[in-house]
Amino acid sequence: MTEWLKTFGGGAAEGSASMLDLLGGKGANLAEMANLGLPVPPGFTVTTELCAAYYDDDKRFPDSLGGEIEAGMQHIEAAAGAGFGDAANPLLVSVRSGSRASMPGMMDTVLNLGLNDETAAGLAAGTGDARFAYDSYRRFIQMYGDIVLGVGYHEFEDLLERAKQELGVQLDTDMSADDWLSLIEQYKAMVVARLDAPFPQDVGEQLWGAMRAVFDSWMNRRAVTYRRLYDIPESWGTAVNIQAMVFGNMGDDCATGVAFTRNPASGDKRIYGEYLINAQGEDVVAGIRTPQPLTADGDAAAEGTGAPALEQAMPEIYAELGRVSSRLESHYRDMQDIEFTVQKGKLWMLQTRAGKRTAAAALKIAVDMVAEGVLDEETAIGRIEPETLEQLLHPRLDPDAPRNVIARGLPASPGAAAGKLVFSSERAADLAARGEAVILARPETSPEDIHGMHAARAIVTSRGGMTSHAAVVARGMGRPCITGATELRIDPAGGTISAAGVTLGEGELVTVDGTRGELLAGEIATIEPVMSGAFATFMGWADGIRGLAVRANAETPADAATARKFGAEGIGLCRTEHMFFDSTRIVTMREMILARDSDGRRAALAKLLPMQRQDFVELFRIMAGLPVTIRLLDPPLHEFLPHGEAEMREVAEATGLGVEEVGARVAQLHENNPMLGHRGCRLGISYPEIYEMQLSAIFEAAIDVGESDGSAANAALEIMIPLVMGAPELRILKDLVDGVAADINRARGAVPAYMVGTMIELPRAALRAGDIAELAEFFSFGTNDLTQTALGISRDDSASFMDSYVRHGVFAQDPFASLDREGVGELIETACRRGRAARPALKLGICGEHGGDPASIHFFQRCGLDYVSCSPYRVPIARLAAAQAELKRR
Amino acid sequence: MTEWLKTFGGGAAEGSASMLDLLGGKGANLAEMANLGLPVPPGFTVTTELCAAYYDDDKRFPDSLGGEIEAGMQHIEAAAGAGFGDAANPLLVSVRSGSRASMPGMMDTVLNLGLNDETAAGLAAGTGDARFAYDSYRRFIQMYGDIVLGVGYHEFEDLLERAKQELGVQLDTDMSADDWLSLIEQYKAMVVARLDAPFPQDVGEQLWGAMRAVFDSWMNRRAVTYRRLYDIPESWGTAVNIQAMVFGNMGDDCATGVAFTRNPASGDKRIYGEYLINAQGEDVVAGIRTPQPLTADGDAAAEGTGAPALEQAMPEIYAELGRVSSRLESHYRDMQDIEFTVQKGKLWMLQTRAGKRTAAAALKIAVDMVAEGVLDEETAIGRIEPETLEQLLHPRLDPDAPRNVIARGLPASPGAAAGKLVFSSERAADLAARGEAVILARPETSPEDIHGMHAARAIVTSRGGMTSHAAVVARGMGRPCITGATELRIDPAGGTISAAGVTLGEGELVTVDGTRGELLAGEIATIEPVMSGAFATFMGWADGIRGLAVRANAETPADAATARKFGAEGIGLCRTEHMFFDSTRIVTMREMILARDSDGRRAALAKLLPMQRQDFVELFRIMAGLPVTIRLLDPPLHEFLPHGEAEMREVAEATGLGVEEVGARVAQLHENNPMLGHRGCRLGISYPEIYEMQLSAIFEAAIDVGESDGSAANAALEIMIPLVMGAPELRILKDLVDGVAADINRARGAVPAYMVGTMIELPRAALRAGDIAELAEFFSFGTNDLTQTALGISRDDSASFMDSYVRHGVFAQDPFASLDREGVGELIETACRRGRAARPALKLGICGEHGGDPASIHFFQRCGLDYVSCSPYRVPIARLAAAQAELKRR
Repeated sequence: MTEWLKTFGGGAAEGSASMLDLLGGKGANLAEMANLGLPVPPGFTVTTELCAAYYDDDKRFPDSLGGEIEAGMQHIEAAAGAGFGDAANPLLVSVRSGSRASMPGMMDTVLNLGLNDETAAGLAAGTGDARFAYDSYRRFIQMYGDIVLGVGYHEFEDLLERAKQELGVQLDTDMSADDWLSLIEQYKAMVVARLDAPFPQDVGEQLWGAMRAVFDSWMNRRAVTYRRLYDIPESWGTAVNIQAMVFGNMGDDCATGVAFTRNPASGDKRIYGEYLINAQGEDVVAGIRTPQPLTADGDAAAEGTGAPALEQAMPEIYAELGRVSSRLESHYRDMQDIEFTVQKGKLWMLQTRAGKRTAAAALKIAVDMVAEGVLDEETAIGRIEPETLEQLLHPRLDPDAPRNVIARGLPASPGAAAGKLVFSSERAADLAARGEAVILARPETSPEDIHGMHAARAIVTSRGGMTSHAAVVARGMGRPCITGATELRIDPAGGTISAAGVTLGEGELVTVDGTRGELLAGEIATIEPVMSGAFATFMGWADGIRGLAVRANAETPADAATARKFGAEGIGLCRTEHMFFDSTRIVTMREMILARDSDGRRAALAKLLPMQRQDFVELFRIMAGLPVTIRLLDPPLHEFLPHGEAEMREVAEATGLGVEEVGARVAQLHENNPMLGHRGCRLGISYPEIYEMQLSAIFEAAIDVGESDGSAANAALEIMIPLVMGAPELRILKDLVDGVAADINRARGAVPAYMVGTMIELPRAALRAGDIAELAEFFSFGTNDLTQTALGISRDDSASFMDSYVRHGVFAQDPFASLDREGVGELIETACRRGRAARPALKLGICGEHGGDPASIHFFQRCGLDYVSCSPYRVPIARLAAAQAELKRR
Repeated sequence: MTEWLKTFGGGAAEGSASMLDLLGGKGANLAEMANLGLPVPPGFTVTTELCAAYYDDDKRFPDSLGGEIEAGMQHIEAAAGAGFGDAANPLLVSVRSGSRASMPGMMDTVLNLGLNDETAAGLAAGTGDARFAYDSYRRFIQMYGDIVLGVGYHEFEDLLERAKQELGVQLDTDMSADDWLSLIEQYKAMVVARLDAPFPQDVGEQLWGAMRAVFDSWMNRRAVTYRRLYDIPESWGTAVNIQAMVFGNMGDDCATGVAFTRNPASGDKRIYGEYLINAQGEDVVAGIRTPQPLTADGDAAAEGTGAPALEQAMPEIYAELGRVSSRLESHYRDMQDIEFTVQKGKLWMLQTRAGKRTAAAALKIAVDMVAEGVLDEETAIGRIEPETLEQLLHPRLDPDAPRNVIARGLPASPGAAAGKLVFSSERAADLAARGEAVILARPETSPEDIHGMHAARAIVTSRGGMTSHAAVVARGMGRPCITGATELRIDPAGGTISAAGVTLGEGELVTVDGTRGELLAGEIATIEPVMSGAFATFMGWADGIRGLAVRANAETPADAATARKFGAEGIGLCRTEHMFFDSTRIVTMREMILARDSDGRRAALAKLLPMQRQDFVELFRIMAGLPVTIRLLDPPLHEFLPHGEAEMREVAEATGLGVEEVGARVAQLHENNPMLGHRGCRLGISYPEIYEMQLSAIFEAAIDVGESDGSAANAALEIMIPLVMGAPELRILKDLVDGVAADINRARGAVPAYMVGTMIELPRAALRAGDIAELAEFFSFGTNDLTQTALGISRDDSASFMDSYVRHGVFAQDPFASLDREGVGELIETACRRGRAARPALKLGICGEHGGDPASIHFFQRCGLDYVSCSPYRVPIARLAAAQAELKRR
């Protein structure tokens, strides 16, 4: 019947929760509550369609609106039993925005609308509370003057302050009715002076002014920025809710409060919240008075002030609130965050929405609700944002502790830790060996720092992005880490960090909040994670649903064990180079690299072989029965060489070469762009003896484990060739793998089953996937390098501009954190399609950092990948994201 | 009638030159000559189809072949008037390979077949020359023994050597008939000892053995490798030519020789060649006797030995050879390289093929033949390999000078120059200012070395590939350059280069052969290029045919002038950064980079603006009326900063900053992979004031030139944004360009017409070309960076493995020299398709190094590009390649 608005209240509503797009969140839920028969002050919602029409027609309202608004106001008057502009029994309304997506505080609100000189007097008479009535009126003039008339809020506040000074009072509550009346006259005079027109006394004019102001606020700068940040289309528009005012501040039989239907921190099934007697909604939030708990016991009461709980002060209201709470929860099938007001002993519901909660609470509520029969498992799975699981796996800072932030950077690896500052990996290892908690600060890290990072509780770097060396390694180890703290000057030589005027030296205490990317001065208490039974139950459901397998990127026994603990179904990326940085091995590795010829290299490799074999023996034991994908040596050889003069001398002594020769070889191996240099399979082709040693170690370890366990070796040994550009390189190196296998077979009389596959991490490889799949039995997308090359961005150097790129909207998100679907994504889709066309049984996986990113996992599921592989600490997140992706597909 | 062979000789032939695929090159041309009625010894060609059948059937000949060979031999006997195996009048034949593509020396040949104890005696009696007959017989045993029977050639040679020692003679010609007869007995005995079977006396058995050996040689290792290198399909197979032997060594009325129908060095229209009286073909080549010229005057005679020319010694034969030569040339419509033998006063033609020639000769012959009406212009255009024009544009080394090669590297920029070694750009500039010729040797070069490279006659680097900084800049300047001379140790601090046991210091003379990539000790004379009138005529034809426009990459007035001289139709890439390295500007540039904030940067930029404007004024004057594409600043800022401590101190003084602050800023700007770092449009977004200054300079310069010339400014000013990943960056920077244009318009009352476009140099940009083209008016493919990113190869670091990659067949060619069509090519095709779909009028060009590579130009033509842009010295090559590409398309 009506075109532009929907009424609610008085036990019924024209709208419902399903009309979210049309009515916005607030309006839809008010209608839904009214339909449920809950006590909602009557009102109506002007739809988002009107917002669109308003902007389309150059900010003019359609002609038909006038009549509809009039009818809407009559609906309110009838339900509320009061008259809009009626001095005898005045109806006051609120005018609030309400868009489809929550945009907290971004748009405008006008309260107490309908007050003028006459109705204010009438309100005073009707309520017998002149102080309340004139306070409300002056609040309305102030709010309306600011929002609708454009008179600055501070100008009103200045007058109020002056009045208080003159009267010698401190608090608003010290002002009498007459004081307010006199201030009201000053307010009105000031409006006339500013606008050359009186403050509108016509309540109809007030209503239209407020409605227009709320619609206009859809395009204010705050809202526009917020929408761009959260990717909310401008076309959605906002609705406007016009609703009868109820008052919690009309006496001691009045109150106002907020409640969660369950505890939002623990998830316990018990109403939880705060209220204030004789107060307005903003008083609960403003913190001038300390709110009282709802329940007589429980957490909120524990913090209590001694003031009575709602349960005690208003037992009937409390009981009704409990019934409303149950009704809303079973109706919405989710924990609700509600606002209520008690006006003269009557409970009114002002808002309901899904309540925010901690990850632990979210898990408990989801599992409880399935047990209660409220939810099915699939719906429960969809309720948890995978990223939030992160909170459950890492220590976090006490949220109440004071935070003295020295510098901000990228939240590269979550969790928190405190300790003494150190500036070198050697020092970190030394102090840690003596039992000290240390925090390693470096301009950036390199593979040489692995032992220092392992020894440290947390890592901070001034350079690098979310997938810089420091970030990747720290996440893999579960160490909190901040990278790209560009404002932090880290001087390892001088042994200081400085930022924001503070300079700290070695041994001083700092705290790293890796979850927020903040470095804090001093030691701040951390809270250790606890994994609940709900976690296991919940993850079990996720595993039952998901199609994608989840593996971990791991190479050390410790990482592999963590990965299994978190539910990894194999290793998707074992980086063999990390095994060479151990201090006992690096010398031999350097000997190999500095050798003058292939014979010299072979001699050094022969010494490395038993060590590398032992690495694999341990790894295969831990991952028994699960697939292990081993990437042959990938980084350029110069990464293993020393750079400082002192270290070069050390190497010269160890290898028996002259310092000059070591220096010359280091210089010769130097590369301008090592990322695009002599690495990956290019090493395998130039120095086949390196790959031969690695392959021997792998095959021999698999045989040894098989023999000692009396069982078959690993179910699937997957040999992975890095950085191929096309089929020819793979042909050469597959021949090499098969050759070593044949040698082992001759020597040991057996060889374990193995597959040969490749990383797809260069754009050309993605395009040539058809040829490559003729030879490769599996592809593993190396999305870090694929992103670096497709976008031409070095992840180690991106910190200097990535922020401004995200801010300028060039990327919605850092493409190293969440896959760039438009560019890198197309390459992956192309490679999947061409690869499977050439070899339908081709196994497809991904082992870049994106393997642990939920949005990226959805994309990988759509591409038809078989598995994702991520750092051990991301495995639970990937398991849940994969389940959600499967549900979405269905 | 016959299935497997085609006969020729006796004034007719079953085959023809058009049957190249079936008969191979040699067989087809023998048939063609026979058809022309030229004196060709009779024979027949066993076809390449038989080769395929032979290999298909497990190296068995088809049953039907026997009868056909018999018939073929009868044809030869009839035409030659001799009998195969007839002791009274023996027919001898040659058995030679001959495939579709020339594979010189890769397969086997057997001569003098048909000799046995009886026919040798018969030949001796019939010719009255026993020495000749038995020498022929022993040669046959030796050749057949080696090739067909597998007895090592050296075993025969050992016997011959021993015999000579015993007889006390030095030369083969000192051996008498009896000596040969006795050696033949030893040969036969040795064969029996090795094979346990006698040397075959049955001439039929000899024939089948030789035929099988020649077919087998198609698969020998040499041939297989050669085919892989030159991309010749194995399936083509070889033909076998069986032909009556003729002898140039039967007395003084016999001779043998080779001739070019025109002078292959100058192109002069006059027969040119060498011959020997009473000799065999190999004697001419072997160099034991000095050959005599064909003509009594001319170049060959000038080198003469005093021995009579063919013209004098055998005037009738000379006249007949002249007629044959004219006939062949007008028939083949090309200069021919022919082999002939005179046997007892009769001329026989043994081979004809297109003759190899110098670039100068090729041009003159092509232009002359068009004038003679033999060729049309289009055919003439197709005859010249574009790369050969390079010879005409650069100095080259005297080919006869001795070459003492110190080191080899990549032939990065052609030409040759000699001078004194220097190890720094400063030193190069100093010495050059004093008039010294210097050769700059550096481990690698960077933009700071521009002035030194300009001052040097040639450049050598130990690192970098074909498109490293040194290579690109040297080609642009026309300086000879060797890069990636990995074995050369260049020590700039010590001031030495060393390689191959040689160490040279500053001031020592070296010669750079950039065409061959060789560094030579000492000063070697060079030959300056001369451009003939034929060059201009020929290039005019090419310009008339081609569809692709050709522009040059140039930024200095000198380069721009060179580009116009070589026929460039505009500038396709003006790199603005090169303009900042001038010693007077670099200080201000550094001041700008080191500034603490945007205001500081603006102050420094204001000083750079007039300088940059003047650069453009000069450039626009030179390129008047032609389009100029200007790329805004591209390299990362740290490229402009000093690295040594002394230089940092200098900068600290000039800028008034502390040394420590300069050092800190340098460290802060350091990048691990600058190629993938904060550069290109990323700078324009971070520091818009830099691009604003450049744009002001460009627009103001265009207005100034237009005003001072009283004419319109450049026909097309093309502003090019580098390194975009997608549309968002271009949107930001296009707004910036338009904003500056609007400012200029306000200030000057006018603004020149301009276009805004982008480089497409990242894989993602190629994929997002549709979006980008919504904003860009042109694309210029930056194939250097596109190759680097698509393949994940840094061109500066590729030298260490690119060689082995080409050798292993991973690439047919260095992908920085010739476009990788399979990978980078697909990205370019995709970008062209998507770009033109979004904007049909989109202008497409390419400004990477591949713009001057003929094979790549053919690809660009197929992609529908509008122009290619290359370094000035490659412009003529690109013009010709573009004409050929257009002819191919037609």
